[in-house]
Amino acid sequence: MQAFMDQDFLLSTPTAKTLYHEVAEQLPIIDYHCHIPPQEIAEDRTFDSITQVWLGGDHYKWRQMRSAGIPEEKITGNASDREKFRAFAEIMPQIIGNPIYHWSHLELQRAFGITEPLDGGNADKIFDCCNEQLKDLSARALMEKFQVRAVCTTDDPCDDLHWHDQIAADSAMQSKVLPAFRPDKAVNIEKTGFNAYIEKLAGIAGRKLTSAENVAAALVERIDYFAAHGCLCADHGLDYCMFAQPDTKEANAAFTQAMEGKAPAKAQADAYKTLITIACAKKYAELNWVMQIHFGCLRDNNKPLFAALGPDIGCDAINSRSGVENLAPLLNAFAENGGLPKMILYSLNPNDNAAVASIMGCFQNGGGKLRQGSAWWFNDTYTGMRTQLTELANLGILGRFVGMLTDSRSFLSYTRHEYFRRILCQLVGEWVESGQYPCNRAYLDKLIGDLCYHNTNEFFRFGV
Amino acid sequence: MQAFMDQDFLLSTPTAKTLYHEVAEQLPIIDYHCHIPPQEIAEDRTFDSITQVWLGGDHYKWRQMRSAGIPEEKITGNASDREKFRAFAEIMPQIIGNPIYHWSHLELQRAFGITEPLDGGNADKIFDCCNEQLKDLSARALMEKFQVRAVCTTDDPCDDLHWHDQIAADSAMQSKVLPAFRPDKAVNIEKTGFNAYIEKLAGIAGRKLTSAENVAAALVERIDYFAAHGCLCADHGLDYCMFAQPDTKEANAAFTQAMEGKAPAKAQADAYKTLITIACAKKYAELNWVMQIHFGCLRDNNKPLFAALGPDIGCDAINSRSGVENLAPLLNAFAENGGLPKMILYSLNPNDNAAVASIMGCFQNGGGKLRQGSAWWFNDTYTGMRTQLTELANLGILGRFVGMLTDSRSFLSYTRHEYFRRILCQLVGEWVESGQYPCNRAYLDKLIGDLCYHNTNEFFRFGV
Amino acid sequence: MQAFMDQDFLLSTPTAKTLYHEVAEQLPIIDYHCHIPPQEIAEDRTFDSITQVWLGGDHYKWRQMRSAGIPEEKITGNASDREKFRAFAEIMPQIIGNPIYHWSHLELQRAFGITEPLDGGNADKIFDCCNEQLKDLSARALMEKFQVRAVCTTDDPCDDLHWHDQIAADSAMQSKVLPAFRPDKAVNIEKTGFNAYIEKLAGIAGRKLTSAENVAAALVERIDYFAAHGCLCADHGLDYCMFAQPDTKEANAAFTQAMEGKAPAKAQADAYKTLITIACAKKYAELNWVMQIHFGCLRDNNKPLFAALGPDIGCDAINSRSGVENLAPLLNAFAENGGLPKMILYSLNPNDNAAVASIMGCFQNGGGKLRQGSAWWFNDTYTGMRTQLTELANLGILGRFVGMLTDSRSFLSYTRHEYFRRILCQLVGEWVESGQYPCNRAYLDKLIGDLCYHNTNEFFRFGV
Repeated sequence: MQAFMDQDFLLSTPTAKTLYHEVAEQLPIIDYHCHIPPQEIAEDRTFDSITQVWLGGDHYKWRQMRSAGIPEEKITGNASDREKFRAFAEIMPQIIGNPIYHWSHLELQRAFGITEPLDGGNADKIFDCCNEQLKDLSARALMEKFQVRAVCTTDDPCDDLHWHDQIAADSAMQSKVLPAFRPDKAVNIEKTGFNAYIEKLAGIAGRKLTSAENVAAALVERIDYFAAHGCLCADHGLDYCMFAQPDTKEANAAFTQAMEGKAPAKAQADAYKTLITIACAKKYAELNWVMQIHFGCLRDNNKPLFAALGPDIGCDAINSRSGVENLAPLLNAFAENGGLPKMILYSLNPNDNAAVASIMGCFQNGGGKLRQGSAWWFNDTYTGMRTQLTELANLGILGRFVGMLTDSRSFLSYTRHEYFRRILCQLVGEWVESGQYPCNRAYLDKLIGDLCYHNTNEFFRFGV
Repeated sequence: MQAFMDQDFLLSTPTAKTLYHEVAEQLPIIDYHCHIPPQEIAEDRTFDSITQVWLGGDHYKWRQMRSAGIPEEKITGNASDREKFRAFAEIMPQIIGNPIYHWSHLELQRAFGITEPLDGGNADKIFDCCNEQLKDLSARALMEKFQVRAVCTTDDPCDDLHWHDQIAADSAMQSKVLPAFRPDKAVNIEKTGFNAYIEKLAGIAGRKLTSAENVAAALVERIDYFAAHGCLCADHGLDYCMFAQPDTKEANAAFTQAMEGKAPAKAQADAYKTLITIACAKKYAELNWVMQIHFGCLRDNNKPLFAALGPDIGCDAINSRSGVENLAPLLNAFAENGGLPKMILYSLNPNDNAAVASIMGCFQNGGGKLRQGSAWWFNDTYTGMRTQLTELANLGILGRFVGMLTDSRSFLSYTRHEYFRRILCQLVGEWVESGQYPCNRAYLDKLIGDLCYHNTNEFFRFGV
Repeated sequence: MQAFMDQDFLLSTPTAKTLYHEVAEQLPIIDYHCHIPPQEIAEDRTFDSITQVWLGGDHYKWRQMRSAGIPEEKITGNASDREKFRAFAEIMPQIIGNPIYHWSHLELQRAFGITEPLDGGNADKIFDCCNEQLKDLSARALMEKFQVRAVCTTDDPCDDLHWHDQIAADSAMQSKVLPAFRPDKAVNIEKTGFNAYIEKLAGIAGRKLTSAENVAAALVERIDYFAAHGCLCADHGLDYCMFAQPDTKEANAAFTQAMEGKAPAKAQADAYKTLITIACAKKYAELNWVMQIHFGCLRDNNKPLFAALGPDIGCDAINSRSGVENLAPLLNAFAENGGLPKMILYSLNPNDNAAVASIMGCFQNGGGKLRQGSAWWFNDTYTGMRTQLTELANLGILGRFVGMLTDSRSFLSYTRHEYFRRILCQLVGEWVESGQYPCNRAYLDKLIGDLCYHNTNEFFRFGV
């Protein structure tokens, strides 16, 4: 029996252990997609307790706590930090097999040197131990501890990026911290607040925006602004992947409706979204940016809890109507409109993995610009990552994969890169040990190095 | 090489063997969902031959026999019991990998002490051996042999439950046998026979039912009647999960159409079904019942065979239009209408597993009332159960799972609980042996005990 | 560690090795579905270089090369054979886990005796070595080397089958080479060129075709023609599985539109396709042919590349709208129209596996005429084949499976049968070694023999 989460965690073969310890473990981290507020890096945020950094904004853990029957008071309510931590610790033995079980223990091990399994019995002791250590573990200290060389945050087109400017100007800052352009509020025309957002964008553009084309032009200007502030990538978050034959009249009809506070018909809304997305893609291609598309998320499903707590509180789900059938015509529209940008594609629906990979393969002429994203959100599990790596290997080229990202709001989440690297080395090790791939260190070291660091660095042009 | 289906069947590690033999195997059985007619328990049915109890109503086996090319005569026709048994025995070696291969041998081993693999060569000998033993194996004797502590049957709202009353009054009866409320005939408005069924329900209600609301009120009365007869749960079987914005007028329009023998439009039919389902759910929540929803089944696909043999004869299939996209709004409607009942959710489409689990996670505030059901019907296989357990662990909380049920018409099917328990112990054992979960007997014994018995007992309030 | 792709490649247990080496490896090959032009067999084509036979028409490899960033010049362009081979060799180490990695090495090993892993370093040496050997490896020599006993090509209804006649009359030909009837161009009414094709078919029929029924009648005549030339099977390739309630008027409306060069409405097009397909199925049933249906492919997705290179150049993908929900009513329509033919069903969407298998089970009365096809195209991978075999075992009868086919345009692809056989023996071996199936050589030898050769031979009536 292997010891619980020791140095060879998830590594069962000699090849896996060698690849992990001699190659993967040695490499620093690039986290090309996260949700850390740049302000927290700029100001080098500190934490009073592990509850703040661990449970503060982590809706993954909130869902687990609710599923275990814990009252909201101890999740998002007024209970003390200690009570919340204890409530979470008490459910740990039940969440066997969940990635949070592994993430949490990796975080306790790597950030705090705590190796015992967390449960209700040692919750108070561990709470105190972590809090004591957190006095020396600011945001930047954690980034340095995990050897984070580059990070992309997630930023609104209307943002002036002053926190990013401040970080860039700070000579003490050792990691590269770059913005990522996320124009969702200008795309998702059916959502509440769209018209107010367009007014805000108009204010920044310095002119009225009276058509879909006006919005596209304003976004293109903001892309230039972001580029001038170091940005190298964009991210489009879509409830479903849409496509409509380009039709400016329909797009503008949707826009007019929405600006009057009315709900546009779905076909018109799709025309609007398609027009904006195609215009952005063309600009990204010109700038050699990486365009990410995340689709297939059904958000804010629990209306009573949304009314009480708002968005991003653990009430999102996999969208079974992810629109993956529109992906091929959307990419074709990019191709016909001046060329595809470099892209990374993610669907939240695990059933889409094979379709996405097979569609990507149709558009790789022109340099192999498309990469499938790492197993996203609800798929970011041991089995989900193995499946994604295997299906990508089956249908695309594993050696071109751009690897892991945290997608996280927490400075402790960099251990997810470790989790990924262990799974990758185990999988590749299995192939080698079973005679499916040559035991050739030159091949293998390059492969592991590329997937853990170098492919990302090169694809995004981070230069770190 | 491990011996064929010996005491360590499916258990390959020391931890798996220990957990199974020391914990899982020791626990009695609760079978919270089955299709055994209560009359057979009340009257303590006996069986003339193993064909009756094994092949009599088992459309799983009928499908296998048809797929192997056996003529209908030897399946549902007039061939003798011995001929039918022999025909089934002859195909056994071909159905390698099928759960029926394992179920059948577990049943021969546990009920009859027969350990050799069944095939055409020993069919007659085994037929005689089983029949001899069946003289002492009545319905109740089988329930006692398998230590069945509680059973829920499946009962129509119009049923007066007199067989259940008779069982409850029988002091010799050692198991708790409870009804389950299954209102499908009052919900599925598009099916033949709907209007006749509503007339029957009206007769029991003692008044005319002239609207969707009338039907809902009559069902609520029957729920009270069932509760007074010990019922603790309901089950809704849906070809697809439907949702329509609550609209009484549309629901009533559908009802009027259907009562006139016409087919209502799908949108109106969905409005009717949604209204009835929401009303039932509210009542279940008040009574603290468990509401099961089974969706995603395409029934009676082979019209010529349906014309010859009727429903439930092995011509149902997975519905690729399972309507899982409607699950979140349906649950939200429950939440907005006075609160969710305790629920167990099942889709017949294995592609829905992850979506269902992710949707459930959005509605767990209020005590964690939602549980994902065990791998259902076509998914009730070795790989299907492992996948369901793994995906539930990934996306929900495995430790809260309410475990196995037979969903069967046969008194021999209790061995499916053994099959499940072996798979569970093997999976958990793998996690422990590979260092993914601590080798902590306190954690593990609680987990296995909860998933094999205690969670079900507590969730349903069986009190056994 | 097992050596790279040695004699026990993919075989990890004693049972697997025994079953493969003593049974599977000894059996000749039937390749019941491929895309080799019969002319190449009739004329016994020879090859100037391995690039011709390996990369010439292989869009699987083209996709990989594009995905790796190789310019089109070295894929489908004017680069020399040596440059193209070298470009492919250089990406080999990156495509770890891809079936092409294994297929390519199996082909180098079995056809050319080359056992070292191919990469940029040995590309030139291997290129020369293969070309030298190709002087003695004509089309027929390769078929004999791989012990190919029977092959079905893919032929248009308008084909006069003269190449097939020439092969049949050639006493030196050792394999049986038969046509397969593929009426897609007469079915897919929405495609460009439909009306021109109907005119061609009318020319062969010797009369005007002015309705859907006329087309069906002409096809039925061509089926008789094919039968007279030895044909035993048909194949229908559908972008999606369609079904419309039989409606001759709607079908004819679609036909009239299409013949005028207009796009018929989808519902009418589906009526046309359904009518033609039902008529063909009835004829196949009469002749005791095997009808294959391949559905779920989204073709020619990249319009700019299609404009440059045409169809079948690596720009097809999995169709997420595969229409599997129409499969049950389509099969029922066959059943109601004089009986199902023998059939083999394939969906390109791996999510359909379980649904297809469960639907098939509803229509097996009448002799078990339906078989699920082997993992097709994008699913033809190590994991895809294991999954297909496992799901078929779960839901159908593995022992009735008709096994492997290459679906290939290359004479080197017969090694895919070896790849399949190794995976099959490994999977069955795992079941035996873990006590899930008896270690009974009579059972096992029959099973492996049936799945590698005999079931196909019997189902198609090849008589080899």
